[in-house]
Order: sequence, then structure tokens, then C-alpha cells
Amino acid sequence: MSEPINELRSRIDALDAELLKLLNQRAQLAREIGRLKNGAVYRPEREAQVLRRLKQLNGGPLSAEVVERLFVEIISACRALEQPLTVAYLGPEGTFSEESAIKRFGSSAERMPCPSIDEVFRAVESRHAHYGVVPVENSTEGAVGRTLDLLLQTPLKVCGEIMLQVHQTLLFNGDSLAEVKRVYSHPQSFAQCQQWLASNLRHAERVTAPSNAEAARLASGEPGAAAIASRRAGSRFQLKVFVENIEDDPRNTTRFLVIGPEDAGISGNDKTSLVMSATNRPGAMRDLLEPFARRQIDLTRLESRPSRTGLWEYVFYVDIKGHREEPQVATALAEVGEKASLLKILGSYPCARD
Amino acid sequence: MSEPINELRSRIDALDAELLKLLNQRAQLAREIGRLKNGAVYRPEREAQVLRRLKQLNGGPLSAEVVERLFVEIISACRALEQPLTVAYLGPEGTFSEESAIKRFGSSAERMPCPSIDEVFRAVESRHAHYGVVPVENSTEGAVGRTLDLLLQTPLKVCGEIMLQVHQTLLFNGDSLAEVKRVYSHPQSFAQCQQWLASNLRHAERVTAPSNAEAARLASGEPGAAAIASRRAGSRFQLKVFVENIEDDPRNTTRFLVIGPEDAGISGNDKTSLVMSATNRPGAMRDLLEPFARRQIDLTRLESRPSRTGLWEYVFYVDIKGHREEPQVATALAEVGEKASLLKILGSYPCARD
Repeated sequence: MSEPINELRSRIDALDAELLKLLNQRAQLAREIGRLKNGAVYRPEREAQVLRRLKQLNGGPLSAEVVERLFVEIISACRALEQPLTVAYLGPEGTFSEESAIKRFGSSAERMPCPSIDEVFRAVESRHAHYGVVPVENSTEGAVGRTLDLLLQTPLKVCGEIMLQVHQTLLFNGDSLAEVKRVYSHPQSFAQCQQWLASNLRHAERVTAPSNAEAARLASGEPGAAAIASRRAGSRFQLKVFVENIEDDPRNTTRFLVIGPEDAGISGNDKTSLVMSATNRPGAMRDLLEPFARRQIDLTRLESRPSRTGLWEYVFYVDIKGHREEPQVATALAEVGEKASLLKILGSYPCARD
Repeated sequence: MSEPINELRSRIDALDAELLKLLNQRAQLAREIGRLKNGAVYRPEREAQVLRRLKQLNGGPLSAEVVERLFVEIISACRALEQPLTVAYLGPEGTFSEESAIKRFGSSAERMPCPSIDEVFRAVESRHAHYGVVPVENSTEGAVGRTLDLLLQTPLKVCGEIMLQVHQTLLFNGDSLAEVKRVYSHPQSFAQCQQWLASNLRHAERVTAPSNAEAARLASGEPGAAAIASRRAGSRFQLKVFVENIEDDPRNTTRFLVIGPEDAGISGNDKTSLVMSATNRPGAMRDLLEPFARRQIDLTRLESRPSRTGLWEYVFYVDIKGHREEPQVATALAEVGEKASLLKILGSYPCARD
């Protein structure tokens, strides 16, 4: 071992001792807050503020993403000193839902995989879990209808959103793209990588598979075959990551909602999710949205869905920018409430992206 | 929000800013070391030293276990700046093997679940993965024979061990132990909790299940039924953790080995794993062990296993305290090598427990 490495290591040791001291001081302060608050130790708006601020302060070399992950772990460990949170999600283990639950709650939270979205809601409603994480928009499968239906019925509130980036990877065990005779993938993944395929693999045969994991499995057993799937599927079936991030839209993400007994306080950069409906006459929807438009409140999402109750033909799921307690938003919501035959405020929560 | 909470939060904010600065400084130093070393950035002995020291320095309130987990994540994130490690393990996701891989390599490492122990070895031998994690002693199933057999054949070295504590939990959705009419569990788990069952649930019927997860599933559907399983199985089947840590031996653990292209350097508290054999005559084994005994080198494990090659009737798997490069150990090994018909040094590595 050369001298300079030893020197660098001593500096790391000194930093580590200082880090340890600060981490314990932080845990002590978090514990005092927990005592003052009698245990209600998860405040989504506070955590969002803390993470936003740290990502702004960050000068690298650690990326914003890594900084967020480390601090989610630190916060999660400090919180678990008081009361470990239980988080229900759509299982089994190893899914994107689990990844998103860890992304938000850290690995000190207890995880409760549930066999269906219905059971995630039930677990939180029955207080078997403190919070639940459910997919709501899936870039490969579109809106998750079951989640939308259950949000209409539940007494729970939406108190957070989690965005998970979904990357497509060309997995291939050969040496050059010219050797690829066939590509396996799920039809939605082919659709997401059309431009890349057109420029790079025009002559390879495309064979659809029921899932990306299955595509990787098929490719792993066949010389000259590649798959479009996740890195993780590549690891699983021992296929090389040949080209990364081949999706045409690099912002290809799945969005999850966090559900719990209450929504979040104001963090300064929030969204509010609503369900609403009006009697079925021309222009009814435009009328309902007008109070937002007049106040320049952004709509970030609008999705219509046939009503299952028979009372309204359609219900509309609307996400707006702003917190329901902010004056502008509150008066707009009051106005909408007078016009709508149904208005349910699902909850306000910090935006996942700043 | 009351004043004192705001004050505590400002202090946390100040600590977080300082933590962020130090984390980035640490990442920068780790990067410089990586450059000096041309990428060979995982040194098991160095990590063991760093973690041991921090656990000694730790004054709480964070537990030694949490300190270790946070620093494994920090080290893992710093290392991933240079070269993310790929770690193969016995899958599927969500197993104890995965838990142990995360425990050692942190969540910034790429994880490669393999369908069999053979494929974990193959993945590392073929350099699809940098390291592999394989179970070697399983407190519920005893020694893992397949791992021992493969260690005999592989050119890989053992470069680490990971101990994972396995806790048994009584899962039950009723209100008192008196309501438990029946308990489901795996026979080995019943065996591990015999004393507790005898004192606390003498009159409940015991019904064996093929796995603890299956036991939890059965109990969840039947009023008056409890299960002995992991907390995680309880979360999974929405059973309450009724009593924790009911195992008779609180040190109930599973041991994993880390395999890689090289073993570890000296960390100051190490073990060495060996396989050896002697011609089949009385006292042969005692003779082989004598060089260790004479130098007061501790044997931490001795396990005999029928040889599959036919050349020797038995091979002995021996773990000793100390590193193969330490003079005492080196001379003992040389002496053993002269006497034994087979001696293979599987590797030296830091002890998982201090």
C-alpha cells in the first residue's frame, strides 16, 4: 500500500468519526421531536422540505439521487428509534412497488407486501400498516384503474407521490449489435424504444413476450437473441447490459401514491388530488375547471373514468398544483364544490419533482 | 407547530448541511483512492476495519447495528461513483441471502439473484458478477453441503463472512395467549422454540408446515391459530407480532460466505477457511490439527464431509482464527501442508463478529 492511499484513508477515518457524531446528534434531536409530538413522527411535508433543501445545497460529487437516498436512510433510521413505520405495498418482494416504498420510507421501515391493491388499502384502513404505496400511473400499462376506484371509496388520504424512473436496457451476450438476429420484449417496451430500434436494430426480428423478465429469460437461452428489459432482469438471467437507457422518452416513469390516515401539511411545492363529477350536460367539465383556470392554478393531470356507482356517468380525477390550505386553492375548491355533484378531495402532498 | 419543535428542526437542518458536506468530501476522497488503485475499490479488510472502529466510537442513541447499516450505505454510495459492484446471490429476491448481500454491500451494489448455489459460483467464475454470497451454515438446515462441495472445486477465494440473525416470532391476531388453540410452523422452528412453547403454549396443538411463510398463511385464515415465523412473514399475511424473539438460543444465526477472485488482506481480526484430508488411519485428523493446537490457534469450526472425488474418504472443513499471512498461522499451515494429503486454503477474511 503506497503512502498517499494511507493518507487519504486517514482523512476518510477522520471524516467518518465526525459523520458518526453528527448522525447521533441528529438521532437525539429527532427523538426529542418525537417526544414533543407524542409519536406522530412522519411528516411528509417536512421530509420533502429537508430533501429538497439538501439537493439544492449539494455540490457533488455525490449525485442528487444518491444524496436523497442516503438521507432517506438517515431519516428512516432516526425515526425508527421512536416508532418503526409499517408500509404496505403491492408485492411480491422485488417489484417496482417495493422499490418505490424503500425510496420514500428507507430500509428501516417495516415492509408489508400485499397480494393486491385492494389489500394495500385494507391494510392501512384496518391500521395493520401506517401507510400504503399504490401505483397510479404506469408508463407501461397506463392509469391503474383499480387504484382510482379505491381512492373514490376509501376514507384514507393521499399524502405523497413517488416517481420511479423506468429505464429500458438492451441485454445481449454477444460482441456487436450486428450479431443481434432477434429481440424479445413486451409490446409496451418495444413501443417505448421505437426510435432507438429503428436507428440501431432495423433488421433484427422482433418477438413479443408476456413480460420483460420473460423476454430476458428467452434471450438468455438463444445465441443471437437480445432482450429489451430492466438491468435487473439482465442480472437475473446473466445477460450483459449491452446498451443502457434506450427508451425514446428519458422521463419514462411510474407514479405511485402514498395513502395514509391524513394528508400532508404545506411544504411549499405541493399538489392536490381530487375526484369530481357533474351532471351530464355539455360544457359541465369546462365549468368545473373554470375556477382553477381563472386563478391560474395548473392542472397537472386530468383523467376521466366511467363511474361504477351509477350516480354519475363519469368521474374525473384531477391533480392541481398547490395545497388545499393555500388561500387561492381553498377558494377555488369551495367554488368547485358548489358546482359539482361530487367533489372529493383525495389529499394534498409534496410534489415528487421540484 | 410549537416553538421548541421549530428550534429542534433548525438544529437538524444545520446538522444535515454539515453531514452533506462531509459525505461529499468522503466521496471525493474515495474517488481519489479509486484512481490511485485503478479501480480495485473493494477491500474487505479495510471495510471491516472502518466499521469496527465506528462501532467502537459509537456512543448512541443510534445502535451499533444501525451505525453499521448507515455506513455500509455511505461506503456503497461512494464506491459506486467509481465502479458499481455486481453481487450474485441465491435468489429469489426477498430471501435471507439477499438481505445478507445488502448487509455487506449496501443497496448501491447491483444484485444478481441466481436460481442455485452452483450458478452463484458460475456467475463469479465467469466474471458476470464481482462477488458472490452463498449460505454455508444455516441454523434451520445445518451445513449447506452444496456450498462446501463447490468450495472444494472452485478457483475462487473466500473473502468474507456475513452473519444474519434469525428471529422467531409468534404471530397471532387474537388478544391473549390463552386464545391460541393451534400453532403452525416448520419443524425446525418448533425445535428452536421448544422451551418457550413448553412454558407459554403447552396446551396448543402443534401443526407442522412446509415453510414458515406457509405456516403464517395457514394461521392467517383460521381464528385461534397462531404461527411461528419471521416478522416479515407476519407483515406479509397481516398477522400481528404477538411475541418477539421466542427462540431459545438468542444467537440463532445463518452464516454466509462472500466469494470472489481474491481473499482479503489482514484486518487484525480474521479467520481462515481450509479444506483438508489425510490418509485414512487412526489419529490422522488429530495429527493434522496438532500444528494449530501447539500454537494456540483457535479452531472456530470443524466439519467432516464424505469426499465425492473418491480420492479421500473424508474431507474436513476447518475454520481457524487468524490470517494466513500472519507468521504463526503461516508456519502452522506450512506444517499441515506437509502432513496432509490434501490442503486447500479457501481464503482469509475479516471475522464478522468482534
